[in-house]
Amino acid sequence: MQIAILLYDRFTALDAVGPYDVLSHLPGAEVVFVAERPGPVTNEVGGLSLVAGAALADVPTPDVVVVPGGPGQTAHMGDGPILRWLRAVDAHTTWTASVCSGSLLLAAAGLLTGRTATSHWLVREQLADHGAIPIADRYVFDGKYVTAAGVSAGLDMAFALAGRIAGDAVAQVIQLAHEYDPRPPYASGNPDTAPRAIADAVLARRSAIVS
Amino acid sequence: MQIAILLYDRFTALDAVGPYDVLSHLPGAEVVFVAERPGPVTNEVGGLSLVAGAALADVPTPDVVVVPGGPGQTAHMGDGPILRWLRAVDAHTTWTASVCSGSLLLAAAGLLTGRTATSHWLVREQLADHGAIPIADRYVFDGKYVTAAGVSAGLDMAFALAGRIAGDAVAQVIQLAHEYDPRPPYASGNPDTAPRAIADAVLARRSAIVS
Repeated sequence: MQIAILLYDRFTALDAVGPYDVLSHLPGAEVVFVAERPGPVTNEVGGLSLVAGAALADVPTPDVVVVPGGPGQTAHMGDGPILRWLRAVDAHTTWTASVCSGSLLLAAAGLLTGRTATSHWLVREQLADHGAIPIADRYVFDGKYVTAAGVSAGLDMAFALAGRIAGDAVAQVIQLAHEYDPRPPYASGNPDTAPRAIADAVLARRSAIVS
Repeated sequence: MQIAILLYDRFTALDAVGPYDVLSHLPGAEVVFVAERPGPVTNEVGGLSLVAGAALADVPTPDVVVVPGGPGQTAHMGDGPILRWLRAVDAHTTWTASVCSGSLLLAAAGLLTGRTATSHWLVREQLADHGAIPIADRYVFDGKYVTAAGVSAGLDMAFALAGRIAGDAVAQVIQLAHEYDPRPPYASGNPDTAPRAIADAVLARRSAIVS
């Protein structure tokens, strides 16, 4: 089972590494980070580089594809190499997944037309501009497509996807190995319950987060 | 504020990237990944490489140091370059932090003697072999030292540390930007509540997880 995780300049690291660190422990999984060119790809903060082991053309038929989000996503919303690759590999995948604003790339590629999907709360409604049906949820399955909400939601999505791929027991073993029993010290992770001043501060920083 | 995140071969990616993706958004933060040699450092699964931007000697006085865990940690428990660097930088840090079995490196360096600390549940009691007092908790603060439980606990620890460094509001803004409102699809993230068969399966895979 080949799992391809897409990288592009100014991606958000946790969007990619959260699902990676779950799915890479599935039995028989071979995970490859893929980008337009092999080599280091730098995140949106600028201090982290993950190495892409393959170019897009080197990974034509992955079984699973995972598309992270990040401010750099906007540069690839037009019909270019990344959307073309997504369309081509989607014809072969068993599962096509995204985290955060990565779902906008799937939608722009035409893969979510008429389907329910989610994204980072800051950009979720933009899914409708590309024919998808936005849903406010931690992650959304629609057929073989699974989209996660912002950044950290990729972890929850990945455990759910691991369960679909390999069964509940395998997903639970990975969860316990990762001690994924979250206890956030603050309760500000959701725009519906965070203090208004906190939400306003995030809205003011919007361009650094998603576009 | 310079934040140094240590890398070594066979580290666990999420241990490093979870705290990175929180702490790198602190105002004035400059995060550097540091290893014995600059360049790509590969995780314990073998499919992910993060680029270390600096060698140990290039980062002599970070304000914050974060030590991830992973099976590769055991190779550095003896008195070598990494323990010597940890002792040297700890003389300058405002905060010295670890995730997962990374706390064993801090303890082996003699930095946790007589202090309360935690680690991955599989190795937590080993802290006592190095003079620390093991505590079963998601993360433990003792003075300027903060240690997190296994892998994903680094996220909770990092938000708590962000609050100590920059105040609750800043930490909450980062939390909402990352939509950190976790909803694991399974309840098997804690050895005390996971099904017995799941815990037994993790124990059987112990050497692939922490040593």
